[in-house]
Amino acid sequence: MTRSRLTPEREAQLYEAVLDLLREVGYDGLTMDAVAARTRSSKATLYRQWKSKPELVATALKHSKPVHVGDIDTGTLRGDFHAMIGRTDDCQMEKDSALMRGLAQAIHAHPDLHEALRELLVEPEITGLDALLRRAVDRGEVSADNPALGYVPHMLVGAFVVRHLIEDRTPDQAFLTDYLDAVVLPALGV
Amino acid sequence: MTRSRLTPEREAQLYEAVLDLLREVGYDGLTMDAVAARTRSSKATLYRQWKSKPELVATALKHSKPVHVGDIDTGTLRGDFHAMIGRTDDCQMEKDSALMRGLAQAIHAHPDLHEALRELLVEPEITGLDALLRRAVDRGEVSADNPALGYVPHMLVGAFVVRHLIEDRTPDQAFLTDYLDAVVLPALGV
Repeated sequence: MTRSRLTPEREAQLYEAVLDLLREVGYDGLTMDAVAARTRSSKATLYRQWKSKPELVATALKHSKPVHVGDIDTGTLRGDFHAMIGRTDDCQMEKDSALMRGLAQAIHAHPDLHEALRELLVEPEITGLDALLRRAVDRGEVSADNPALGYVPHMLVGAFVVRHLIEDRTPDQAFLTDYLDAVVLPALGV
Repeated sequence: MTRSRLTPEREAQLYEAVLDLLREVGYDGLTMDAVAARTRSSKATLYRQWKSKPELVATALKHSKPVHVGDIDTGTLRGDFHAMIGRTDDCQMEKDSALMRGLAQAIHAHPDLHEALRELLVEPEITGLDALLRRAVDRGEVSADNPALGYVPHMLVGAFVVRHLIEDRTPDQAFLTDYLDAVVLPALGV
């Protein structure tokens, strides 16, 4: 018996349905039954392809994320950072911010989701960011022993996550660009 | 008829019970009935004192928070920041971090909770932080037009909130102290 592979279009539909359900009912409310019903697919197909709910959710999030930091290489650190922010428009950023707040509790309550997110989403982006920073060090833009180098993910993700709490506004490109120029680049000595 | 005021000890007990319930059942699971039962008080007392659940929760969080940034004045910005971090021990920081993750979704889902938290907790701390930063500017430690001045809450709260996601470890004093010296003070030009 041959196993039918999902087409990329079909996969994209499934991921979109998962993210819609996440926004509507949250991680705890999201069931494989609901995903199957929403996408008119069988639970067997879902489990064959993704093994578990945490893996499906992490893969859907990874798929929705249009920033692959590792691909960016403009020739300057400032240019790379700006390109990174420019890849996500404000509307998408607002949706990402809402998803992230919705997942914060679930990440805490479900170590398997936390693990899947770290493995599929967080670590590849941190690896990409490290490559981008290493190039800046090689070009002589940042000193190799600058202690802020290890905190770039904290600075960027942190500002993204907490703006809503601190300013009652979701993050957007203008905010992140200004934060980059005011905080991240000066901390790196650029 | 005279209205009996709660003693400070009794108030502290009530707040502790609210935070315990928050950790156990989350914001949505927390009911005024449960608080009344846990603390052997009447719902009438709770509502007379706090008006609503968001206000009770925000007040309990504020009460538990031993850092009142506004009180700190060591004579240098670095000293003030270190004193700020030193006021919360690692055990308490881990509990605060868990509470914060647990509240992230509730803040999003309940604008009245978000509003109460901003009013009772976030804004007073930002006001305290502003005073601390203004003194650093007056002493000539930080330039008055440094663009990072407006982002100190984002830097500090951001690093606190995202360490768990990025490093799979809760924030502690050693981490925050190092982040302060590597990121926050250099961004401020100190």
